[in-house]
Amino acid sequence: MKPSIPKGTRDFSPKEVIRRDYIFDTVRQVFRLYGYQPIETPAMENLSTLLGKYGEDGDKLIYRILNSGDFLSGVSDRELLGRETAKLSAVICERGLRYDLTVPFARYVVQNRDKIIFPFRRYQIQPVWRADRPQKGRYREFSQCDVDIIGSNSLLNEYELVRIIDDVFKRLKISIEIRINNRKILSGIAEIIGESAKITDITVTIDKLEKVGPDAVNQELKDRGVSDAAIKKLQPVINLKGTTGEKLARLKGIIAGSETGIQGVSEMKTLFSFIESSPSADIAGLDLTLARGLDYYTGAIIEVRSKDVRIGSICGGGRYDNLTGVFGLEGISGVGVSFGADRIYDVLDQTNLFDDIKGSGTQVLILNFGEKEVMYGIGIQNKLKEIRVSSEVYPDPVKLKKQMSYADARKIPYIIIAGDEEIKSNVLTLKIMSSGEQKKMSPDELISFFKSFHF
Amino acid sequence: MKPSIPKGTRDFSPKEVIRRDYIFDTVRQVFRLYGYQPIETPAMENLSTLLGKYGEDGDKLIYRILNSGDFLSGVSDRELLGRETAKLSAVICERGLRYDLTVPFARYVVQNRDKIIFPFRRYQIQPVWRADRPQKGRYREFSQCDVDIIGSNSLLNEYELVRIIDDVFKRLKISIEIRINNRKILSGIAEIIGESAKITDITVTIDKLEKVGPDAVNQELKDRGVSDAAIKKLQPVINLKGTTGEKLARLKGIIAGSETGIQGVSEMKTLFSFIESSPSADIAGLDLTLARGLDYYTGAIIEVRSKDVRIGSICGGGRYDNLTGVFGLEGISGVGVSFGADRIYDVLDQTNLFDDIKGSGTQVLILNFGEKEVMYGIGIQNKLKEIRVSSEVYPDPVKLKKQMSYADARKIPYIIIAGDEEIKSNVLTLKIMSSGEQKKMSPDELISFFKSFHF
Repeated sequence: MKPSIPKGTRDFSPKEVIRRDYIFDTVRQVFRLYGYQPIETPAMENLSTLLGKYGEDGDKLIYRILNSGDFLSGVSDRELLGRETAKLSAVICERGLRYDLTVPFARYVVQNRDKIIFPFRRYQIQPVWRADRPQKGRYREFSQCDVDIIGSNSLLNEYELVRIIDDVFKRLKISIEIRINNRKILSGIAEIIGESAKITDITVTIDKLEKVGPDAVNQELKDRGVSDAAIKKLQPVINLKGTTGEKLARLKGIIAGSETGIQGVSEMKTLFSFIESSPSADIAGLDLTLARGLDYYTGAIIEVRSKDVRIGSICGGGRYDNLTGVFGLEGISGVGVSFGADRIYDVLDQTNLFDDIKGSGTQVLILNFGEKEVMYGIGIQNKLKEIRVSSEVYPDPVKLKKQMSYADARKIPYIIIAGDEEIKSNVLTLKIMSSGEQKKMSPDELISFFKSFHF
Repeated sequence: MKPSIPKGTRDFSPKEVIRRDYIFDTVRQVFRLYGYQPIETPAMENLSTLLGKYGEDGDKLIYRILNSGDFLSGVSDRELLGRETAKLSAVICERGLRYDLTVPFARYVVQNRDKIIFPFRRYQIQPVWRADRPQKGRYREFSQCDVDIIGSNSLLNEYELVRIIDDVFKRLKISIEIRINNRKILSGIAEIIGESAKITDITVTIDKLEKVGPDAVNQELKDRGVSDAAIKKLQPVINLKGTTGEKLARLKGIIAGSETGIQGVSEMKTLFSFIESSPSADIAGLDLTLARGLDYYTGAIIEVRSKDVRIGSICGGGRYDNLTGVFGLEGISGVGVSFGADRIYDVLDQTNLFDDIKGSGTQVLILNFGEKEVMYGIGIQNKLKEIRVSSEVYPDPVKLKKQMSYADARKIPYIIIAGDEEIKSNVLTLKIMSSGEQKKMSPDELISFFKSFHF
């Protein structure tokens, strides 16, 4: 019986790790150029930190870690036989695995408030765990790349994130569109149609507009108890067309009666005036149907999609006015986005964009002719290391055919043959696997040959 | 009440993440130059994979993850009231957090045996979790950097690991000594003193020789039931002195009666003949007192210590003849070592060797004089990005004093002042924080100025 791994988790092969590191390194480099600083938090958090932050459904998806030792010591027989699993698990488990990077970040900020210099630009690239039903593209362990700036209300921060998104996907060569909305506009709309209490229903439903069309949206609004009058009033919003500028101008008229709504329109005007003067101008636009699930956003909402691969959001986020309030520190506003490494991986894979990261594996195999000869080969390897060329010495002096087929299977492009004769004359043979060509050269010539490449 | 993190876990601040990444990047670069390939495995493994691999004590230190949903469904009332926590936890938890990287590696190899090309050089850099009692320098979440080559018996592999160790610590500028022993020699010694059955007791006890001295070792051997005659026979071994060559020569005589022992001496002779011809010659030596806890080593045992900081082993490992046997795949021999990132961190910190990684933070702060001026600053930032200089635009147009004190607190070495006047004349001011000096220059001159540095 072969061993296996838990459902919804993955091993990453060498090829996959190298590709994933390419994504992580790219986002990291861009984040650093804008002055964002890395933090890392533990995989385990106290359950008191995690619970109640993701809604009732979210709580159920948190992996809980059984207390060590006699985990039943605080539980009475009666409680045991009661079998209330929710209650019991809270007693026998004190810790859970982190569910996202936002709550641990908020906890970190409150815990280190005296040491942090605000405004605080931070990034965090770590795995998270969710006890979700595994599906294609949905895993129980996956990585998030979060970038946030907190302690500043400036809309320049939203603009900075748009620039970061633009830079990251340009480097990855992924064509994108950035959709932007504002929670205040959504609130304003709910207000002027007289359904403020139903804002969540309305936003969740409008979010589906692109997928299901206006008729289905109107039906769902009705099903969710939104009045016919309100639905009627909503139609100009649902059918809003044109450029971002045109949409904002018309919208200003529609929601003139809502102070919050006006403020949202004004924020979007400022943000898009920044964006219009930049290279991101043609990839970003206002999208009033964008709501996103999480309802802690209070201002801008941002979502990024690939133009070439229909895979949903590959990056998203927004502004939240009270990140740390739940841990007792009020008044810290922030804005951030999270890059979805797994979906970005799929986009790069499906558009063959990983071809760009060649030369990441072993470049040279040095054949092994025996203990004496191999020492000469190790000398060559030392020289290759100095010029940063990755090489391997075959460890056993087995038949050359076996060594060659190893190079072949590993797709190692160059082979160095240095047997007894070669060593005596100090002229070794370089075999180029792609052409089969063999070149005789001195060790110095070999190093010059490889120096001329850029690995 | 401030939120907190679980005992034995840590947050890493920006400074710490940058320092840790420096260690991980260094080992990764060296591993790659020798052709080692990265793999990654999930944090959660099935408990059936983990249990029984680390001894009874090890099993207790594995973090178990509570099953989702109704975790008590398979447990009868009787079993519940029986309160046998060990038995119960096996039913209510199917998964655990990985305890090391070796067992997941063995599991990976067996699971992917058809895809792997042997000999397989792999490295793996990931955190592991142990429900250990937290102590100074001992954490419940810590990172391991493992490097192994499997599917080859060649002693060149042991030598390669010594070279890798030498390269890594040279790059990190840590002075080290590498102690090497061989399990076969230890077996041979136990055999010739007539105490083969007590080999574990003997090796564990001899391992303490340096710490407690020969008298205490002899007493403990006695306490562990080793006969007086055997202890007497052991004295030439305990008191063995001289160079590695001298030790091996004398040892050969002492254990001439043991075939296994002779083989161990012969292996060490070959390995040290390799090492003696290399730059690692003066830092590596035979140490018969080296046993290391894990008893799955079958050949070479390797341990590395810092010469300057007494902190115990900072890297260690050895050869194991049956890595994958426990998962049903026999006959795969391998050798590997694990670099202890946390202890290496402490050595670098205590010897002030982290000073070398300067220039990793933000280099330039661009002051914010208002919405119009800041767009000019963002243009400068775009140019700085192109030459890979990390810069920040202060997000809010607050008082300059506040912006300056931010730069000061963040230790940002340069400030760019571009107000209304500067923009009109296209001559901005660069303030050098270390000297207080202010220089007027055009944007082009500014870029030339920063290009002359190597960030």
